[in-house]
Amino acid sequence: MTTTPSKVLETFPNPQPGRDYTIRMTLPEFTCLCPKTGQPDFATFIIEYVPSALCVELKSLKLYMWAFREQGAFHEAVTNEILNDIIAAINPNFMRIRAEFNVRGGVYTTVIVEHKNPDWQVPQLVNLP
Amino acid sequence: MTTTPSKVLETFPNPQPGRDYTIRMTLPEFTCLCPKTGQPDFATFIIEYVPSALCVELKSLKLYMWAFREQGAFHEAVTNEILNDIIAAINPNFMRIRAEFNVRGGVYTTVIVEHKNPDWQVPQLVNLP
Amino acid sequence: MTTTPSKVLETFPNPQPGRDYTIRMTLPEFTCLCPKTGQPDFATFIIEYVPSALCVELKSLKLYMWAFREQGAFHEAVTNEILNDIIAAINPNFMRIRAEFNVRGGVYTTVIVEHKNPDWQVPQLVNLP
Amino acid sequence: MTTTPSKVLETFPNPQPGRDYTIRMTLPEFTCLCPKTGQPDFATFIIEYVPSALCVELKSLKLYMWAFREQGAFHEAVTNEILNDIIAAINPNFMRIRAEFNVRGGVYTTVIVEHKNPDWQVPQLVNLP
Amino acid sequence: MTTTPSKVLETFPNPQPGRDYTIRMTLPEFTCLCPKTGQPDFATFIIEYVPSALCVELKSLKLYMWAFREQGAFHEAVTNEILNDIIAAINPNFMRIRAEFNVRGGVYTTVIVEHKNPDWQVPQLVNLP
Amino acid sequence: MTTTPSKVLETFPNPQPGRDYTIRMTLPEFTCLCPKTGQPDFATFIIEYVPSALCVELKSLKLYMWAFREQGAFHEAVTNEILNDIIAAINPNFMRIRAEFNVRGGVYTTVIVEHKNPDWQVPQLVNLP
Amino acid sequence: MTTTPSKVLETFPNPQPGRDYTIRMTLPEFTCLCPKTGQPDFATFIIEYVPSALCVELKSLKLYMWAFREQGAFHEAVTNEILNDIIAAINPNFMRIRAEFNVRGGVYTTVIVEHKNPDWQVPQLVNLP
Amino acid sequence: MTTTPSKVLETFPNPQPGRDYTIRMTLPEFTCLCPKTGQPDFATFIIEYVPSALCVELKSLKLYMWAFREQGAFHEAVTNEILNDIIAAINPNFMRIRAEFNVRGGVYTTVIVEHKNPDWQVPQLVNLP
Amino acid sequence: MTTTPSKVLETFPNPQPGRDYTIRMTLPEFTCLCPKTGQPDFATFIIEYVPSALCVELKSLKLYMWAFREQGAFHEAVTNEILNDIIAAINPNFMRIRAEFNVRGGVYTTVIVEHKNPDWQVPQLVNLP
Amino acid sequence: MTTTPSKVLETFPNPQPGRDYTIRMTLPEFTCLCPKTGQPDFATFIIEYVPSALCVELKSLKLYMWAFREQGAFHEAVTNEILNDIIAAINPNFMRIRAEFNVRGGVYTTVIVEHKNPDWQVPQLVNLP
Ligand SMILES: [Ca+2]
Ligand SMILES: [Ca+2]
Ligand SMILES: [Ca+2]
Ligand SMILES: [Ca+2]
Ligand SMILES: [Ca+2]
Ligand SMILES: [Ca+2]
Ligand SMILES: [Ca+2]
Ligand SMILES: [Ca+2]
Ligand SMILES: [Ca+2]
Ligand SMILES: [Ca+2]
Ligand SMILES: [Ca+2]
Ligand SMILES: [Ca+2]
Ligand SMILES: [Ca+2]
Ligand SMILES: [Ca+2]
Ligand SMILES: [Ca+2]
Ligand SMILES: [Ca+2]
Repeated sequence: MTTTPSKVLETFPNPQPGRDYTIRMTLPEFTCLCPKTGQPDFATFIIEYVPSALCVELKSLKLYMWAFREQGAFHEAVTNEILNDIIAAINPNFMRIRAEFNVRGGVYTTVIVEHKNPDWQVPQLVNLP
Repeated sequence: MTTTPSKVLETFPNPQPGRDYTIRMTLPEFTCLCPKTGQPDFATFIIEYVPSALCVELKSLKLYMWAFREQGAFHEAVTNEILNDIIAAINPNFMRIRAEFNVRGGVYTTVIVEHKNPDWQVPQLVNLP
Repeated sequence: MTTTPSKVLETFPNPQPGRDYTIRMTLPEFTCLCPKTGQPDFATFIIEYVPSALCVELKSLKLYMWAFREQGAFHEAVTNEILNDIIAAINPNFMRIRAEFNVRGGVYTTVIVEHKNPDWQVPQLVNLP
Repeated sequence: MTTTPSKVLETFPNPQPGRDYTIRMTLPEFTCLCPKTGQPDFATFIIEYVPSALCVELKSLKLYMWAFREQGAFHEAVTNEILNDIIAAINPNFMRIRAEFNVRGGVYTTVIVEHKNPDWQVPQLVNLP
Repeated sequence: MTTTPSKVLETFPNPQPGRDYTIRMTLPEFTCLCPKTGQPDFATFIIEYVPSALCVELKSLKLYMWAFREQGAFHEAVTNEILNDIIAAINPNFMRIRAEFNVRGGVYTTVIVEHKNPDWQVPQLVNLP
Repeated sequence: MTTTPSKVLETFPNPQPGRDYTIRMTLPEFTCLCPKTGQPDFATFIIEYVPSALCVELKSLKLYMWAFREQGAFHEAVTNEILNDIIAAINPNFMRIRAEFNVRGGVYTTVIVEHKNPDWQVPQLVNLP
Repeated sequence: MTTTPSKVLETFPNPQPGRDYTIRMTLPEFTCLCPKTGQPDFATFIIEYVPSALCVELKSLKLYMWAFREQGAFHEAVTNEILNDIIAAINPNFMRIRAEFNVRGGVYTTVIVEHKNPDWQVPQLVNLP
Repeated sequence: MTTTPSKVLETFPNPQPGRDYTIRMTLPEFTCLCPKTGQPDFATFIIEYVPSALCVELKSLKLYMWAFREQGAFHEAVTNEILNDIIAAINPNFMRIRAEFNVRGGVYTTVIVEHKNPDWQVPQLVNLP
Repeated sequence: MTTTPSKVLETFPNPQPGRDYTIRMTLPEFTCLCPKTGQPDFATFIIEYVPSALCVELKSLKLYMWAFREQGAFHEAVTNEILNDIIAAINPNFMRIRAEFNVRGGVYTTVIVEHKNPDWQVPQLVNLP
Repeated sequence: MTTTPSKVLETFPNPQPGRDYTIRMTLPEFTCLCPKTGQPDFATFIIEYVPSALCVELKSLKLYMWAFREQGAFHEAVTNEILNDIIAAINPNFMRIRAEFNVRGGVYTTVIVEHKNPDWQVPQLVNLP
């Protein structure tokens, strides 16, 4: 595995494939460039998913996010692009990505995108009091 | 695009039109005038929506909010007016506006208004534990 | 409108009568007297409602709450009484009152009461992620 | 009413018997003894209920909790016992007790128990945005 | 009962077997070794369950968690392993384990796993306002 | 001792007169009337002092604060008046009163007053790291 | 007293002129215009002072701050200008103004200015433990 | 060492007697009885000291605090008594005890007492920025 | 003024040169590269100073910080380098820079550096209670 | 440099030796064994220092802390031992170590130790308002 930015996402087999469970990762160090002004943008990404056969490897995900450092990217588009890329790599039962961008012009923007495998049955959430 | 207050809302095409996703913006710098006393009022607006064909352009939204600076406006009426204007501009699948006004007379007031496109099917919310 | 305590609640027409929306007010300065000991009690009231034809006027609500300053009142009874009075004045589609009383005898007490117009259809809550 | 510890719970008539509403009390000063070691245990109790014909009197509840001060009590058992006693006294439509015990051996334990009157229809919760 | 690390989980009879209730424990002192690098990992475990005939003994659970101190363990696998072990010991009606691992490489990871006894009917959650 | 409002402050002998130590009380339930408008004002008082021969009795202090409930009082004047009254009652080595008034007209006001007995030597504060 | 913006600061006599004490006001609703771009700026002002013969009247201070609403003003200059104006009005023994401006360009700026009457002796601060 | 309440404080030799350093303990589980009413009082004790030849043994300190469980004790007196007892046991260079009692009658009370060995030179506190 | 990264710091004249006052800026979007691994590092910089004849221009400071985006830099060295550069540009009476780097290897690191003009007399800080 | 636990502390030259500045590191992942019971203890260490000729290398410090994982250590003794070891490695002008141990027996313990080079002049701390 390299330690340079890379759009390649590495994976590993889900260690408990017969169980629906949640993996949630918070990556507070995303930065890209504003396509209009060329200036840096910053965001925190919260990525949560229910794995199917594969999990995304943590260090590879970090290098993937790093690969946006020199790339121009609109808020709405880049969040969808990252979702599309991870789906292509691990085809999870469910994934939600929440991108909280730093304030610009006095406005705080968050973009939240989701993917649900159409064959996957959403389990009943047990809410304990 | 001007840098003066303007009630015109500019838009751009939704970059991922085939997916229901959420855009949430917090604008903590809204100010208008009290129609009874003429004194300034202040509020934080949280605007969240699921786009249809169009998104509202961020800087244009900021100039739109700025245009209320010299306008007399009751809390309940101005929150509904802003919702009506953004619906007219982008016709989203869903929009909620939450206006948190600063304390007046020892009372804290919040107004929350919503619009749902009648043709839009509310997606099942997946609650991960 | 007077600036003395008054149990009269003034109203104004709902500016957007065709839309279900929420008005939420927090009044942290409620005080009455304990009917057993005569000593002052203090509470924060959170009043939230979906208006029908009328809204309750903010300053008049404040004077109404002030009118309890010299009145003996049990926690459970006074919260219900205030709900009954505001329903009589504006007949909202829905109202919830939450009274958080200050600690007494090492115990923190909150009373929450609700009214729902039987003709009103509770709208589906859209939960954005 | 005495000011000594007492397992007797006094009651008063529900002032608004025709309405389902919530009474919530937080008692941060519960202490009993560990039945294994004899050492003091401490907990915060949150007791919330929807009254039927009777309410539990606040000062009497405090003296009731005080009565556990010299009593050995396991976490799971004592929380169930307190629920059973209050049900016997006021037969509420619904009651939930949440006992948050202080850390022991680096572990934080909470026990939550509930009672629902089988004849009582759980009202639809109105979630305002 | 020993005071050395042990994978044996001791149990005791549920003191209120006819009632569905929740026991929630937070264990902030879990540590194991990274199987790739051999370096220590740290996590906080939140374990919540609805007991059936048996409860897990608190001190024995602590010794069980301690037994991972010298063991190499991947985040996703060890959380599932602990769930499997406790199920084998007490066969609860429901159990959820939430493992919040310390930041590694700028990424915060949480794994949440659940088990529901197929014969157990999830009780309706009463949401008081 | 009465349980009605009273400007009389009762005292008791300092139990450790040969030691400079601090007694700090927070009273979050002060209310008086605005002398201009007659409307209620609310404040939290923090009273801290180093006793000399006498301490102020807690319940009596509470009744003293209660006695302002019907009194018109400017923020700056009432804070000084309360300091003057407690000095007259217990002549402490040092006393500081901090009155945090509730927001009025969008402005939050705090008044802090002090008294130091001119014969009292301020002890060196030991700042532990 | 008018209820329109005004640069005139009204005063009243210090009610306890023989005592050094502190009056602290927080005004979270300051807004002016950026002299470069014409766009609105927002700030919270914390004004604290030890009065000499005069105090600044609260409502008049609020109208004074309002008078900057249409004025172009650099951060560093306007904070100094407000200090100069209040000094001219009440000549306090000491005044500190802290202006916390809203984020611009990803940078949070605060300006703090002070005035000390050269004839005033700074009292020894008593630090209670 | 017993596991029953005991006023005997055990000690151990300071492991680094040639260095002034701080040991700070927070004990949130103190309870005694009100000498007037017989009802339980609760407090959190923060004990910090610079040891001389001896340190106070942690478990013994806990049993010592437990010994007040059945004892009537005024706030100001019991805080001074505990300081006196620990001084007698370990004669520290410096000790400060801060007792934060639970709210009674709407008033929050804290008592802070200190002891400084007259032969001990208070070290200069290095304040790093 | 450009909108590209630049190590040139622009300045403007201090608008109130006869007064010692504080300008404090928080820049949460600093990023550079680790000289050992080439991977991105992130930090928040808090820069506070007492200006002499010149102030540093805000937008130019932001572009200056941006210029480290592609630069390898050790924590201790880069914080000192930034201080040296700003001193060379504006020669302030006093400047303190606090760089809070993101966690690496489970360790949180902060570096704080200062410069004081030797001819500048540190003003007495007035501590209001 | 190894990636196994090691009591050897590596160093690097201070990059700005002519300036007194602060390096502060927080290490929340310290664990050792209780010498009495053999059970694991946990603590957060905050290490802050003013370097002289040498700085302590971050990764080496982490491996050093790791080396206590299998070692029995009393709270007061281990904190002093770590200070002694780092002084021996880098001889800083000043160092303070603050060890916040996890709760044991309901008691929270913190130990703070310091070292000051006798030849080092503590710089005047500039307190900006
Ligand atoms: Ca961010
Ligand atoms: Ca958000
Ligand atoms: Ca606001
Ligand atoms: Ca309250
Ligand atoms: Ca509550
Ligand atoms: Ca507790
Ligand atoms: Ca809990
Ligand atoms: Ca952790
Ligand atoms: Ca989490
Ligand atoms: Ca208040
Ligand atoms: Ca304040
Ligand atoms: Ca602000
Ligand atoms: Ca307490
Ligand atoms: Ca950061
Ligand atoms: Ca820090
Ligand atoms: Ca800890």
